[in-house]
Amino acid sequence: MTQNPADLSADLDARARELDAHVFHSWSAQAQHPSLVIASGRGCRVWDHAGREWLDVSSQMVNTNIGHQHPSVVSAIREQAELLTTVAPATVNLARGEAARRIVSHAPAGFQKVFFTNGGADAVENAIRMARLHTGRDKILSTYRSYHGNTGAAIVATGDWRRIPNEFARGHVHFFGPYLYRSEFWATSPEQEAERALRHLSRVIEAEGPASIAAVLLETVPGTAGILVPPPGYLAGVRELCDRHGILLILDEVMCGFGRTGRWLALDGYDVRPDLITFAKGVNSGYVPVGGVIVSEQVAATFDERVFPGGLTYSGHPLAMASIVAALDAMESEGIVDNARRIGAEAIAPGLAALADRHAVIGEVRGEGVFWAIEFVVDRATREPVPASTIARIKAALVDRGVLPFTAENRIHFVPPCIVTAEEVDEAIAVFDEVLGSTDWARA
Amino acid sequence: MTQNPADLSADLDARARELDAHVFHSWSAQAQHPSLVIASGRGCRVWDHAGREWLDVSSQMVNTNIGHQHPSVVSAIREQAELLTTVAPATVNLARGEAARRIVSHAPAGFQKVFFTNGGADAVENAIRMARLHTGRDKILSTYRSYHGNTGAAIVATGDWRRIPNEFARGHVHFFGPYLYRSEFWATSPEQEAERALRHLSRVIEAEGPASIAAVLLETVPGTAGILVPPPGYLAGVRELCDRHGILLILDEVMCGFGRTGRWLALDGYDVRPDLITFAKGVNSGYVPVGGVIVSEQVAATFDERVFPGGLTYSGHPLAMASIVAALDAMESEGIVDNARRIGAEAIAPGLAALADRHAVIGEVRGEGVFWAIEFVVDRATREPVPASTIARIKAALVDRGVLPFTAENRIHFVPPCIVTAEEVDEAIAVFDEVLGSTDWARA
Ligand SMILES: Cc1ncc(COP(=O)(O)O)c(C=O)c1O
Ligand SMILES: Cc1ncc(COP(=O)(O)O)c(C=O)c1O
Repeated sequence: MTQNPADLSADLDARARELDAHVFHSWSAQAQHPSLVIASGRGCRVWDHAGREWLDVSSQMVNTNIGHQHPSVVSAIREQAELLTTVAPATVNLARGEAARRIVSHAPAGFQKVFFTNGGADAVENAIRMARLHTGRDKILSTYRSYHGNTGAAIVATGDWRRIPNEFARGHVHFFGPYLYRSEFWATSPEQEAERALRHLSRVIEAEGPASIAAVLLETVPGTAGILVPPPGYLAGVRELCDRHGILLILDEVMCGFGRTGRWLALDGYDVRPDLITFAKGVNSGYVPVGGVIVSEQVAATFDERVFPGGLTYSGHPLAMASIVAALDAMESEGIVDNARRIGAEAIAPGLAALADRHAVIGEVRGEGVFWAIEFVVDRATREPVPASTIARIKAALVDRGVLPFTAENRIHFVPPCIVTAEEVDEAIAVFDEVLGSTDWARA
Repeated sequence: MTQNPADLSADLDARARELDAHVFHSWSAQAQHPSLVIASGRGCRVWDHAGREWLDVSSQMVNTNIGHQHPSVVSAIREQAELLTTVAPATVNLARGEAARRIVSHAPAGFQKVFFTNGGADAVENAIRMARLHTGRDKILSTYRSYHGNTGAAIVATGDWRRIPNEFARGHVHFFGPYLYRSEFWATSPEQEAERALRHLSRVIEAEGPASIAAVLLETVPGTAGILVPPPGYLAGVRELCDRHGILLILDEVMCGFGRTGRWLALDGYDVRPDLITFAKGVNSGYVPVGGVIVSEQVAATFDERVFPGGLTYSGHPLAMASIVAALDAMESEGIVDNARRIGAEAIAPGLAALADRHAVIGEVRGEGVFWAIEFVVDRATREPVPASTIARIKAALVDRGVLPFTAENRIHFVPPCIVTAEEVDEAIAVFDEVLGSTDWARA
């Protein structure tokens, strides 16, 4: 394989941009078209057809945990493509069983079954459905700072702005989660933030009526909302509140699962056992669209004799299954999760800390593994966020210099593949340093 | 390629059945496991690991329109897998533009943009979202006999039993569509059925309040509900009612689109122009999970300057896009849609008619292209449906004799790939004939 296997011709980039007129893009006004062409990739690098190269510290949508075009996953897709691309869910398929077995092997004890979907949103949909039917209750509690997907139930469970134009369902209640840097609870320490966030949640549960609540749905580490690593004790406390009231706990590991935090599942870092776990992205790095729900034995038992009223044409799609098997095997045999943990501690944490030391526009950096947020502020004392337009201009400057970041509101997320090397981290951080030093971004 | 490229070993079938304990299956009680192992396929045939073969007249979930493992689509997936499997939606990608261009080339005039999703449910979700935001209205009208997918909004738009345990959203109203064999309108001719069904819909619109209705959502030809080919004049009449009240018309072509009816889109057979078209399945035969919305210029314009609040990680996934390009090119160059039309008229229609002549348990056969339903009744006069258990036993007998059917309620759907030959149709119908003649199924 050459470095860039794409046909090299600037004409193809032009052609791709022209045809993009036929593509209706998500989360955007259609009069603005994206301009970045991506034709191919390998590891932490992507290329256009003209041969330009970018170092990808976004992992695209924070999904290419194993990097771009991992050879063994590509091979597995190619082999399964020769064998059987698609099959009805109501059949038995070997690749599907092999994928499910590997997934449960990374879940806590007491999880034996996997329901497969096409992505994260429908994973959350079906976890919500299981929780409602298992408990016979309707309400789902989730945080304002969260993203759970764009379908009817999932979007209303979402806390951020994307929920508001989509509020067509009932039974969804939102509360505030812990976020010490912008505390909703006037807290000044992680311990206090955890304690007060739990007190707030317990008040919401009481005020909503515990017997009406099917589940609390939480990203183990909220991702799109800002990589909000929960303070010690918070998740265990949520579990305790749920137990007290017969409420299920759904942990959404779509973004934080399968290596991102430097652990197989983010929840492995906490003293918490959920009832349902949703996943997508990292499980196969998104090489084929897939997601799913890991179902605890208690919840699964509800549907032993009772029909589970949910399904989809491509549940357990063979091509997706083969890619999961290969991705998890490679992550295991190549120590990719451990690499994420080590690089996070040894390269990203000190690199971003140094960046924050040198540039006052950075209010906070936080994260773990290959899951980091850089929060940009106009003023460190007031913590006033920089406007989105500033982030757009920082992003453009980074892209110009060959680095592809993930941006959200006043933040840049530094979320490279789990296979990233210390050298690549240093290379990216040097570009950040140059860009941040080029202008007074807090005033710009 | 050998006939059956799978590793041949009955042990692998046993292994697949054993690992299936880790798979949580859709639309079913988990204590019952499927037993049919499918390891590979080609054209209209599928195989297990022991080398048993089935003639697939189900197209799995009515999705393998181009047949199993079409070589050029398999090649395209393999090539794209080498180039780039996954990329963020907010980029430009050549395969994506090529796929979108081909799709709009098969849509009516005035459709220039495609929003890509992972399957049918999220296609419907996003069409509903577009209709609500375009009109500023909330309600969606759809028929009781319909299936539109399993996510929060999509499942509530669904009319059949799968809706009932999932009614967590508001703003969905159901009405009755035309179905002459079991008319809800005491009609005795197709003309009367169309006229009365339109009168009924117009009364529902008036009674719900036209100004509250965003869209009427209809499968052009309702599929899972029984392949209910609409009577002449019905769809044009629905369009007229919608126009009168500023209501959008969404035609769901997830099952009936891309060749199934013997036309590129089912709507090509009617004097009707929708505002939004949903698709999935046939567009790439499900080789990679994908679906989408074809957006009319009027609706697209709403989102030129205004952000469309919907999206998903795998929108416009390169692997899916490459499979669409190859599938549509092969369907075009090999005359596959025309084959579906011709075989429907020349082999399936007469074959099923002869079957109905010989077996009184058949109440009606209906359809077009490779999209046919056989309705089983206890008594032709009362049209009382046979119980589901009878259909399960007929299905088991067919599978035993090497034919794989699609079943729903008291019906078997005869829905082979669009590439099916007259010989294969005859072979399958001979097996049906044998099975139906083996017992008095109306009494059994
Ligand atoms: C935590 C979480 N849940 C769910 C989703 C939705 O996943 P998808 O975009 O595959 O529907 C996302 C997507 O970013 C996510 O981060
Ligand atoms: C007409 C129609 N719409 C939507 C869907 C949902 O598609 P999916 O199962 O891919 O979500 C189906 C599935 O059979 C369908 O037939």
